[in-house]
This record gives sequence, structure tokens and C-alpha cells, in this order.
Amino acid sequence: MVPLDSPPALAGVTWEAGGPETPAGFWLDGIDAGLRGTGVDMALLVSRRPAVVAGMFTTNSVQAAPVILTRGVAAHGVARAVVVNAKNANALTGDRGLTDAEAMQRATAEGLELSPDEVAVASTGVIGVPLPMDRILAGVRGLTLAYRSGRPGDGRRGAEAILTTDTAPKTLAATVALSRGTVRLGMMVKGSGMIHPGMATMLAFLTTDAEVPSPDLDRALRDAVARSFHCVTVDGDQSTNDMVLLFANGASGVSLAPADDRHRFGQALSAMAREGARMIAADGEGATHLLTVRVEGAQDAADAALKARAVARSALVKAAVYGRDPNWGRILAAAGSAGTPFDPRTVSLYLGDAPLFVRGEPAPPDEARWSARLAAREVEFRLDLGQGDGAGEAFGCDLTEGYVAINAHYRT
Amino acid sequence: MVPLDSPPALAGVTWEAGGPETPAGFWLDGIDAGLRGTGVDMALLVSRRPAVVAGMFTTNSVQAAPVILTRGVAAHGVARAVVVNAKNANALTGDRGLTDAEAMQRATAEGLELSPDEVAVASTGVIGVPLPMDRILAGVRGLTLAYRSGRPGDGRRGAEAILTTDTAPKTLAATVALSRGTVRLGMMVKGSGMIHPGMATMLAFLTTDAEVPSPDLDRALRDAVARSFHCVTVDGDQSTNDMVLLFANGASGVSLAPADDRHRFGQALSAMAREGARMIAADGEGATHLLTVRVEGAQDAADAALKARAVARSALVKAAVYGRDPNWGRILAAAGSAGTPFDPRTVSLYLGDAPLFVRGEPAPPDEARWSARLAAREVEFRLDLGQGDGAGEAFGCDLTEGYVAINAHYRT
Repeated sequence: MVPLDSPPALAGVTWEAGGPETPAGFWLDGIDAGLRGTGVDMALLVSRRPAVVAGMFTTNSVQAAPVILTRGVAAHGVARAVVVNAKNANALTGDRGLTDAEAMQRATAEGLELSPDEVAVASTGVIGVPLPMDRILAGVRGLTLAYRSGRPGDGRRGAEAILTTDTAPKTLAATVALSRGTVRLGMMVKGSGMIHPGMATMLAFLTTDAEVPSPDLDRALRDAVARSFHCVTVDGDQSTNDMVLLFANGASGVSLAPADDRHRFGQALSAMAREGARMIAADGEGATHLLTVRVEGAQDAADAALKARAVARSALVKAAVYGRDPNWGRILAAAGSAGTPFDPRTVSLYLGDAPLFVRGEPAPPDEARWSARLAAREVEFRLDLGQGDGAGEAFGCDLTEGYVAINAHYRT
Repeated sequence: MVPLDSPPALAGVTWEAGGPETPAGFWLDGIDAGLRGTGVDMALLVSRRPAVVAGMFTTNSVQAAPVILTRGVAAHGVARAVVVNAKNANALTGDRGLTDAEAMQRATAEGLELSPDEVAVASTGVIGVPLPMDRILAGVRGLTLAYRSGRPGDGRRGAEAILTTDTAPKTLAATVALSRGTVRLGMMVKGSGMIHPGMATMLAFLTTDAEVPSPDLDRALRDAVARSFHCVTVDGDQSTNDMVLLFANGASGVSLAPADDRHRFGQALSAMAREGARMIAADGEGATHLLTVRVEGAQDAADAALKARAVARSALVKAAVYGRDPNWGRILAAAGSAGTPFDPRTVSLYLGDAPLFVRGEPAPPDEARWSARLAAREVEFRLDLGQGDGAGEAFGCDLTEGYVAINAHYRT
């Protein structure tokens, strides 16, 4: 994983180490259920009290069984837990897949003494192989017993258990000062491959102890995802299993005062999700650089986002970043193939603060400055189309021999 | 380049070695103009008599100067020659780029004693670097003198001169028996990287000595490209310089009798273009396999083509083909993210003739047969959506460490 700089400062928000277990009333742990052969591979996140839940899911025609099941839980609007397994996506597993996902949900609900429709299920891993249900159910038993034992969970183990080819767990927590008191936010995500917007294309579980009514929580999640997980592209492939769940259990006793608090809470949630998106991009399979593409001066925000993603998705741009080559021609060509047409004569392009192309003409060579910017772990291109006020960004990573090696030989 | 099987047999069509110089009244040669430092790097294709010309061009917002110029020539409808340089795309070179392309056109016209609007110009290579005009103009002089000397051209040198990271020249010729006599077709293409439909995304020059009126030639080219060059994807990147030109000079004295001949000529042209597309895919940067994806049973042809391209473009599918992994989950996931939604329960997928997934359920493992199909140079997946009658195909290649190495370090 490419190490990241700290999240940007935001008024009233304190970033902290932690995860979805950090807000009051949440519990998280992981267990080695023998799915992976090495290390933890199942996680259970529980809210000690009923939580409002908002969810977003892959838009792929091929939806994994747990996605189909958990859509129903999110529609229900109130949930208590999510159980997750790695190594096996339970996707394209036919009717048996849905039966297995339901069994996983029911066993978790029984272990926690809940109703099945309060339990979300998520899976990630290989497509098309039935779940090994004996191991899954043993894992569920171990996790629910651990929760009921009253022992504190080990959040780090939970965040590790949901990984696939990720090289490191990805978590963050924050304290947000609101007018009526303080609330906390927590997050764990996993990504790595088959990552492209269209939906969030990974697993993300976010929690808060704020009291947030369901419509507000939905809106806050949608806004946050649009500016974060929807902006990630590792390889342009869209997964069958993506889901983002946000639980709000109100355990802080702090509700959001109408205007200002909703805004601040939304900002904190968006900023946290953006960090999650950056973590996913930075840990893209084989990545050695995090690539951020900002597009400004577009006709509107949607067109800016489309062009930013086209650049961040381009195999040629990604390979150039790996080769530390300021190949602005590939960047402009990628932007030119997406969305609204533009006139290259109004366009400028910057590598960090160094101009590469200014209003239709190549900038004078500045190899020393270009090399320095390309040697950084985080490489940022800013493309100003000179057309309008639309701005957007995308997060990606470089394309390396490592990506090829991982994906040429990853099946079982 | 992955070696290809012979083009499919077609009634009345004889495939031959040869190129755009094969039809009567065409001349082709290449020259070492010192652009590349090694080997030929400029080509000149001339029709000894005025030819009807049809053209198709990149739809990228960023259009290279020669594309802008040659659009005008194609709109004019009659042309005599095309001059091509490799190594430098003359794209994103500002106002100077257009002046340079015009100078290249004018010098060629003068050398051939033609009007500039009878001369098409094409460039391929690095973006954003001005053309070295002294070398370009010396190359033009050498080529036009060679033509005017009356010596036969060396078509092979011409086909070599237009290559960039291609590993081999790509040409084909055919004799087509029509009701009023025999006509010939010829073709040279180059591809290799920055190859994705949206336009033909490479250079292709086709010739025929048939007499074909301009509207018929336009229609035949559009039909042929839709089923060939538009179906190629190497890396999903769309170039700034793509063009397909088709010259018909009538030197055979054979015109197309209305219905049947037009159909046969169109079929031969489409089949030739399809071979050109397959050659480009087979010589994709770093490729070790040609990947053909057929989608059947889609709602319509456009949706089938869209899904076929999504599969052939998928980095995960391409890496799996390289790793000889029959990873049908990635194929279905890629198809599921493009175009009209479908229900996976009606879907079947085959590797050549071996089933991988049948009406919603994984097929029984058949590793020996799967391995044999994946060891072939040409790997074909057939996806039957079970929805309707729409069919389409796409041509791609595998993703290898070689692609990454080529593109991480290719600039000057």
C-alpha cells in the first residue's frame, strides 16, 4: 500500500486512529474460520442497540447473493449487525448461493438473538464457487459467542478479516463537534482489484453514534459516496459484490440540529469516505503510486467527474505514472475520449503545481520539477478545460507488472 | 505478434499475400527519413488515377493535425495519395502542428504534381512533440521522386514504415469475382497501443480497383468498420490520430452491378477489415493471445457489441487469459457492467466449445479441455445471454507484463 498523507483538516473534526468500533455502542471482531488458510477471514460488526442503516450497492447486472439479501435489510432501514466473509464472493453461485447467504444471515441472527432482517451479509473473494458452509457457520458461531461473552472486540482483526489482495487494513475514525454535543464516526474499507465506479466497487462499513433519521442518513451517504467511492478506479472492472453500509445508532444521545450540524456531519462523513477511497486507490493491486486526477473548468460537475475517471482509468496514463513519465499527451487523449467535447486550445494541464500544457501549447520542459513530482507517492494531475465551472476528481493508481502478476494467477 | 489462422473462406473471394499496392493502379513504398533512427519511417501510397476516397476518423476531442487536415480531403471525396509518418503523431502540437501537416501535404502534392486537396496526411507516434520538418520534407522528396522515377514501389517497406510498437507489418489482399469481372482489394494497418473503439483507433489504408461511386464507397466502409476496427480494444485508450481511408480508383474497369455485387464487395471488404482488426488485436502491445469475445442472445446488435467490448477490455479478463485461467466470473462481471441489464439465470458462457457456465449455473469442471483451449494462440469466449437475437463480437488481447514495460517507458 502506498502510504498516504494525513486527511485534510476540517473545522470541528478531529481525525483519529480507530474504525467502525470507535463510535459508542459498536463492537467489531474478526475470526479465522479457515476460509483463507491463513489468518482471519470473517468479521462481525454489531451495534448494541438498533441502528438506522443506509446502503448503496453495485449496479452490475450480476449481483452476488449477499448483495441481493442485504438490499432488503437496507430497505428495511433498521439493522443491528453485518457479518462478512473474505476469500469467497458467493456470486454466480446459482440458487444455492442465495440459500447459503440466508443461512449465514439466519445463523448470525440466532447467535445474536435478533431477527434475520436485522442482519446484513457481505462477501468478497472468488466468484462462482459455493461457500464452504460448515466453515462459514462455525465462523458465525465463534463470532457471535465472542460478542455475547461480553469481551471487547478486536477491531483491528475485524478490519483485517475483510481483506482480499489488499496489503493492509484500512480504517479511520473521527470526532465531530456539533452544536448539541460530540459524535463519532468510524470506517473500515477493503478494495484492491475489480474497482471502478458505477457503484462503490468495494466493501465499506461506516458507523456513527449520532442520532440521524433515516432520510437524512440516506442523503448524507449518497452525497459522501458520490464524492469518494464513486471516484475510485483501480482497473475499470466493476464488481458483483460492492456495498457501502452506514449505521447510525444514536448511542451518543446527540442528534443533528437542523442546518449547520447536518452540514458539518455531512462534510465529516464525506471527508472520511474520501479518505477511504484514497486508501483503496493507494492499495490498488500492484500499486506504487496513488494517482489523483482533478478536472476543473468543465461544463458541469458530472462531465468533470467523467473525464477525471477516464484519465485515472487509462492504462496508458497509469503505465506512464509507473514509469515516472510526464506523458501529458496520454492524459489529454484520455480526457478527450470521455464526455462533452472540448477545444484543446482552451485546455491547461498541471502536474502538481508544474505546468505541462498551457492553453493549447506544450509548456517549456521542466524535467527536474516534473521528476520530483513523479517521484512522490501521491501524484496529482490537474486538468483545467477552460470551459465552465464544473469540477470533479478521481482516485486511481499506477499500472505495474505487479498488477498483471496478481491477476494472471488469482483464482482459487 | 500472435500468429493468426487464415481468414475465413468466403464465396467468390480469394485471399492473397499483398497490400494496398496489389489492386491495379496503386503504388506504395517506404523510406528511412531518419525519424525513428532505425528502419523505414515514412510511407507514400499513390493511386495512378483519381480515386474516390472514403474516410473515418477518431471521435476524440483531441484530434491530431493530420486528422483535421485529412477530414477535409475525405469530404472532398476524390484523392490521389496519402503520405504517412511514424514516430511522431503531430498531435497537441498547437498551431504549428497544423502548419506542419499542411507543409507535408503541400510538399507531397508538389512532388506528385497534384493539388494539395488530393493528398491525405496521416501521422502516428508520440503526442505533443513538433514534427522534425527538415527530415519530413526530405522524406517526402525521396518518396515522390521514387514514384516519379517509374520504378515499382516496395509495398512491404511501405507497410513497415507506418508501424510504431507493432512487431510486424499487417497487410492483406484479395481478388473478388463480381458479375462484370474481377476486382481486387488491398489493405495495410497498424495498431498496437492506444487502441479502443469509439473510432477505429489505428491507421488503416484500404484500396480497390473497383469502380465504386462515392455514396456506395462510404456506406461499404462504414459497414465494414462497424464490424471490424470498431470491435478492437487493446487497452481501452482512444487515440488522437486514428483514421481509416479507403481508395477506389476504378482501374479494373469493373463497376459493381447493383444488388449482388454490392453485397459481395461489401462482404469481402468487411471480411478484410475484420482480418485487419484481428491482426491489430493479435499484435497488441505485449500480447501473447488474441482474444475474441462473441456475445449472442442480446437484446440487439448494439448491446451485444457493447458487452463484447466490455469483456475484451476488462483488465481482469485480459490478465486471466494471460494466466490461462478460465475465470468465467470475471467475464460475466464485465458483461454485467455494460449496457442493458440481464438476468444471470438465462446466461451461458463457452470457452471455444467447452461450457463454463450454463443457464445460471457453473458447468462441471473440465480442466483438461479448458487448459487446451487456453493454450491456443486464439482464445474465444462465447456468451449467450438468452434474451434476444442480438449478436456482436470484439477482438482484444491478453494483458501481460510486456504491456506494462512498453508503456511505462515509451515517450521519446
